[in-house]
Formats: sequence, C-alpha cells, structure tokens
Amino acid sequence: MVIELISVGTEILLGNITNTNARYLAEECAVLGLSDYYQVTVGDNEKRLSATIKTALKRADIILLTGGLGPTEDDLTRETVAKVLGREMKESPEIHQQIQDYFERMGARGTPDNNWKQAMVIEGAKIVENHNGTAPGMIVEVDETKRIILMPGPPEELKQMFEESIAPYLASLNNQVIVSKTVKICGMGESRVAEAIADLIQAQTNPTIGTYAKGGEVHLRITASGEDSKAARKSIKPVVKEIKSRFGDKIYTTRESESLEQHVIGLLKRKSMTVTTAESCTGGLVAGELINVAGASEVFREGYITYSNEAKHRILGVKNKTLKTEGAVSAKCAEEMAKGAAKAANARAAISVTGIAGPDGGTPEKPVGLVYIGCYIDGKVWVESYHMNGNRQKVRELTVKKALDMLRRCISDSDRS
Amino acid sequence: MVIELISVGTEILLGNITNTNARYLAEECAVLGLSDYYQVTVGDNEKRLSATIKTALKRADIILLTGGLGPTEDDLTRETVAKVLGREMKESPEIHQQIQDYFERMGARGTPDNNWKQAMVIEGAKIVENHNGTAPGMIVEVDETKRIILMPGPPEELKQMFEESIAPYLASLNNQVIVSKTVKICGMGESRVAEAIADLIQAQTNPTIGTYAKGGEVHLRITASGEDSKAARKSIKPVVKEIKSRFGDKIYTTRESESLEQHVIGLLKRKSMTVTTAESCTGGLVAGELINVAGASEVFREGYITYSNEAKHRILGVKNKTLKTEGAVSAKCAEEMAKGAAKAANARAAISVTGIAGPDGGTPEKPVGLVYIGCYIDGKVWVESYHMNGNRQKVRELTVKKALDMLRRCISDSDRS
Repeated sequence: MVIELISVGTEILLGNITNTNARYLAEECAVLGLSDYYQVTVGDNEKRLSATIKTALKRADIILLTGGLGPTEDDLTRETVAKVLGREMKESPEIHQQIQDYFERMGARGTPDNNWKQAMVIEGAKIVENHNGTAPGMIVEVDETKRIILMPGPPEELKQMFEESIAPYLASLNNQVIVSKTVKICGMGESRVAEAIADLIQAQTNPTIGTYAKGGEVHLRITASGEDSKAARKSIKPVVKEIKSRFGDKIYTTRESESLEQHVIGLLKRKSMTVTTAESCTGGLVAGELINVAGASEVFREGYITYSNEAKHRILGVKNKTLKTEGAVSAKCAEEMAKGAAKAANARAAISVTGIAGPDGGTPEKPVGLVYIGCYIDGKVWVESYHMNGNRQKVRELTVKKALDMLRRCISDSDRS
Repeated sequence: MVIELISVGTEILLGNITNTNARYLAEECAVLGLSDYYQVTVGDNEKRLSATIKTALKRADIILLTGGLGPTEDDLTRETVAKVLGREMKESPEIHQQIQDYFERMGARGTPDNNWKQAMVIEGAKIVENHNGTAPGMIVEVDETKRIILMPGPPEELKQMFEESIAPYLASLNNQVIVSKTVKICGMGESRVAEAIADLIQAQTNPTIGTYAKGGEVHLRITASGEDSKAARKSIKPVVKEIKSRFGDKIYTTRESESLEQHVIGLLKRKSMTVTTAESCTGGLVAGELINVAGASEVFREGYITYSNEAKHRILGVKNKTLKTEGAVSAKCAEEMAKGAAKAANARAAISVTGIAGPDGGTPEKPVGLVYIGCYIDGKVWVESYHMNGNRQKVRELTVKKALDMLRRCISDSDRS
C-alpha cells in the first residue's frame, strides 16, 4: 500500500516551523511496511488543499493529512476533505461534550466560540480521540481501497494519536502484526552505538534495527512483522539477546515506556533509598526530572539550588577553603556538595552538579562545558568530570542526563561492594 | 512572484532525516518577499521527479530544487530537469577542474570515477559555485518569467550557496523588501488571542498578522512588504500600536530574540532585585528556567525544592497549622512558602509553587492540575490559583510559564503601588 503525506499549514510555508511531523510519520509508516512516494505541504487555502487531496487520491491508497484542525477560521482541513468527497459535515454530540469538559477543567469562563467548530465531523468518518487537545482525528474510508486520515498538527497531539489509534488501524489493513522492542542506552554516542552493531544492521531483513538519538540517550528499536504477535515476538528475541550482550550495563532499560528518570526512581523505591540534589549550573533541572516521575515523593523530599558560593557554604557546608583554592567548579566542591546535601536533607543518596554552562565564565583551565558531578550513597562518594559540547541549554540538558545515569550506576556499584 | 520548493531524496521519504532545508528556504524566501504555495518532497525517481517539476512549472514562477546532485547513480535531478526542458547536458571544463582540485586538497588519491558526473551541466544554465562540496548549483532561466534553481541537499552546502549566490539573484528579480515584527503574549490561549484581533486579521492585506502558539505563549508576527525597509517598517507601525493597545500588559516583549525568562531576569537586573524560588510540584524547573539565562547569577543565588511537608516547614517556615488545616496545596501555603523563601535566601523577591501535577493525588476539592503560585516582593505577597489541563509534564511546563509571567506582572504591580 502506498501512502501520501499532506501537511497543512501556512506556518510551514512561511518557514516559521520545521515540518517534523512528516519525518515522524514517514518513519513510523516505514516500520509498518508502508511507503510514501510524495510528501506535500500546502497552506490553509481551500482551493490548493482541495487540488492536493484530489491529486493524492489518484496516486496513493492512504492519505495522511496533518494540521488545519484548529479552532480558528483559517483551519479548513475538515471542510475541504468533506467537499472533495461530496460529504456533509455533522456536529458530534460526544465531541461537543468533550470540548465543553476540556474548557471547564481549564477553569475557563465558557468555551471560546471558535472551538465549537472542532465538534464538526465528516459524515461517515470514524472519530479518533485526541488525549492532548480538543481537535479529534478522523478516519474516512473513501471506498474499498482508499482512506483519508486527518490528524492534528501539534506534534505531541499527533504522536500520541498515531501511536494509540492510527498505527494499529494501519497495521490491521495490512493483515500483518508488527511487534517492536526498544533497548535504551545511556553513556554512548549514536555513532559508537551504530558501529558496535554495524554487522547486525548490515545483515538485517526481519527484524530490523533502528537507532534513534534522543537527548543524550540512544534508543535501539527492534521491529519484526509476522502473521501474529507470537511469531513476531519470537523473531525479535535472539536479536535483543545479542544486543544486550554487546552493551551490558550501558543499557538501562528494555521497557518502551520507561524513561531514565522513571528507572532511577524505581531503583530508589525498591531500595527504600531517599535522595536529594545539590545543583549549581543545572539550577534545579536534575530535581525537576526526578520529580517529574509520579510517586517520586516516596524517595525525594527536598533539594537545593546553590548558585552562589555563599549558598554552597551556608546550606551545604562546602568549605570556604575548597571554594578559594579549588574553586566552585572542582571535583572537591562536587564531593562536598553531595555529602553536605545528604546531611542537610537527611537522605541516603545525593547527587551534586557544578560546572560552567557558558557562554561566559570559561578559562583555559576550566573551559565552558566543564562539569563535575558528585554522587553520595550511604557514606561513599563518587565524582566524575565531563566536557560537554554545545550551547548553554545543551550543556545543561546533557548534564542532567549524565547525573541521572551516574546515580543509576552508583546505586549498582554500591550494591556490589 | 510565487516559488515552489521541491526536495529530492528517498532518505526524506523513508523518514531517515528531517527536511530542515524546506524550512530554511521558506523562511529566507519570505524575507525576500517570495511566497511558496506548495512544498513537495519526492524520491530519486525519474518519472515522479519529472511529473513534480512539470506540475510546479505550471503553478510557480521559481522552482527551488534541493538534493539529487550527488555523484551516485541514483542522483538524477540534473538529468531530469534537462529532459523536462528538452535541453542537452554538457561537461563544464571549469567544474571538471574544480572537482579535481577539490579531491587534491582533500589529499585523496585521484577523483572517484562517480564524481565526474558532477561536472555535467544543463545547457544554458548559470553555474553556481559550491564552496562546501563538489556539486555545483545551477540557475536555469526557462523563459522570460520561469526559473529553475538546482541546489545541493546537504544543509551546510545549501545554506552557504543560498546566502552567497541564490538570495542575491532572487532579490534582484524582485524589487520588494520584507520586514517583520513579533509581539509576545503570555497568559492568554491562542483562540482568545485570535478572537481579540479577528477584525484585524479579516481586514489584513499588507501588513499581515500571523499567530503562533509556543508552549504557553502566543506570538504575533506582523509582516509587511514595501519598496524599501523604511516603507515596510512604516506600514507595520500602526498595526503594532493597535495590538499593543488591545493586549496591554499581556504583552511581555516586542523583541524577536527575547524569551520570557530573559525578560524577567532583565527586569530583576534593572531593579537590582534578588530573587529566590520555593518549588514543590515543579521541583526546580522554575529556578532552572531562570538560571538558563546567561548572567542570572547577578540576581539569583539560591533556591529550594521542598517536596515534603516537613521540608516546607523546616526550610521555609511554613506553619504546621497551615499544612494541617489548609493542606500543602493551598493559597496560604503558597503565601508562606514565598515569604519563607525570601527570608531564608535574604532575597527581595521570591516565587513559590505548590500544586497537584498528577496523575494521582487529586480529590474532588483539589483536582489534578490545581496549582497555587505565590509571589513575594519587598514585603508584599500575591497568590494566584490555576487549573491546568494535560498530563503531568504539561501541567508542570504550563506552571513554570505562569510562575515566570506572574513574577513579571508582580514586579510591575509593585512599581505602581
């Protein structure tokens, strides 16, 4: 089956945003065995959108439309698809209610008039729920072989809807079942990961291995198709086993839905180990990641942001001598921060971060991107130093990832000793 | 003049790479006053590429083609354009020499046979130098009004070529200049903003207003074209003035490159006002945003993450009575957190956050998404409550934005009183 991707949005034509949806959908569809020959972007313009849909109907089996489902007047994807197919638009009472509920939950005084438009659906379309916004998706079966699928433009809405509803629908059209397994690796760059499995990738047919770099992590996705999920799972198994043996403890999880911070909080919970944070250049982001995990309160009670030297000394007990002789960005300071934080919070574990995020403040000996991370567990302290590349934002993001990964490794280390 | 962007590359269709070239070119062309109505991606396939070029020739004046100029057999953009126009391909001795020089500079032993293909040019085309690779660009004047421009696909080659040669060529075709201005609004949803300026949008010709929702903010971009930048700026002015009068202090900046956190740090710096943070459900993210601004250390020295009630009491001095009778998620607690944080850090301003980020912990009286934000400035305290929609991550993100915006508004308030 051939698909065609149509992205609707004047903001893409103006170059205000990058069309990341097209890549996402192309990649996900490739996994499902669906190829696209054309990707078209068109503005919120009825005449041109209509022409684009008609052309796509001639050359593709499934048209994936994204965008133009918003509440404003220039959003006209729904209406245009209906006109092209000669179908009516009808109000869906369920969606009407959902929109009302959404704005009530938001505490808004009533629903903006515009939003009622989002309750209008194309006659005969299957409605697809949107758990991240007010615009529902739609699956329109044009005839025996042709389908038009409408999805919202905001990437987080699109992705959740595609995963939950559209991908299973597309797989069912193909009589194939797709099963995939994700292996998540921290502490290695994408090219090195790819090198380590170059032979497996070269030899692959079914299953296939995809590598995805995601903010300081590399995820390997092993995907197999089969007549049923049992057959697909069976062909995935030996590949996952081989990958595990190659990457060892660089792998932190093989659970699709488990993030690094969830994994770390899980580890801490299983050990009933409380943790605290003492952050300088990351300014609360390490704590922010940990607390992002639901139920983190069981193991995280408090954390400190000590940006000034005075705060490092007063709150965490970092010695003035250390600050004077070694400086705030030093292994010794990271060590004392971690120890002091654990003591102040009466926690069994602590993670500390001190570094130079830039753009200013670097010197030849201590360049921008130099970061020390300290980890304290039950009386023992580890310190690691890193040279991060990139701008301030990037340095901070990578540092948060390294800090969480270090905590994970130190917990395992302290188990062994 | 209307342009059309055609991106050639099977790797885009497969979803292996994101098409950032299309955004780059669209944005650069918008600045030159050139609009695109369609952006098409097509694979390295002669039949489909040929059809795409023919269609584009009917609906656009200038076709910008990227990709497919490489040395391998599947790169066939040059040949396909020549065939569509019924022109011959000829070897260019200059380019032949350049390619030879390029490989010599690289220290390669000879030129790979494939690369000679890149010395073949379309009859009558202007050759455009590529300073970053071996594939030259080409400008083909099809007739009096139509142009086809071929550029390499690798973004760094494309960008340099566009800036150096293509942009000046396009500007010379068009005697217009484009100027734009951005107005950034916080504290209103996109639909409400659009409602408030529906009449302006309805009536617009030049300048035009675009609305863009960006993580809890709405940006309005006013764009005008004119004979010169002075004329364009002049037609933007009254529209910006009208927008300012409608949104008042919901607008935090009209500087394109200023983010909300930069704006807030700037305000604090101008007042030499130190700030601290006391966070529960956001767990350090408010501080993280503030510290993300280079130079924040002048006004931010320390912050507290008080997730447990005990920490709220011990570190911030929140009364046990408040925690017992009103609960940790209450206006009173937010107030005491802000006051206590300012005292503990000896800061003139403090922002506090306490709420229920979910997914658990909600009750009918205090549902998931309920957040109290406190703001202390020089002895005065404000508290606001919000009901946020979305998952845990979303609630936290929106809360950070609201907290920064509240700090901004309270600083202005405290000025007036």
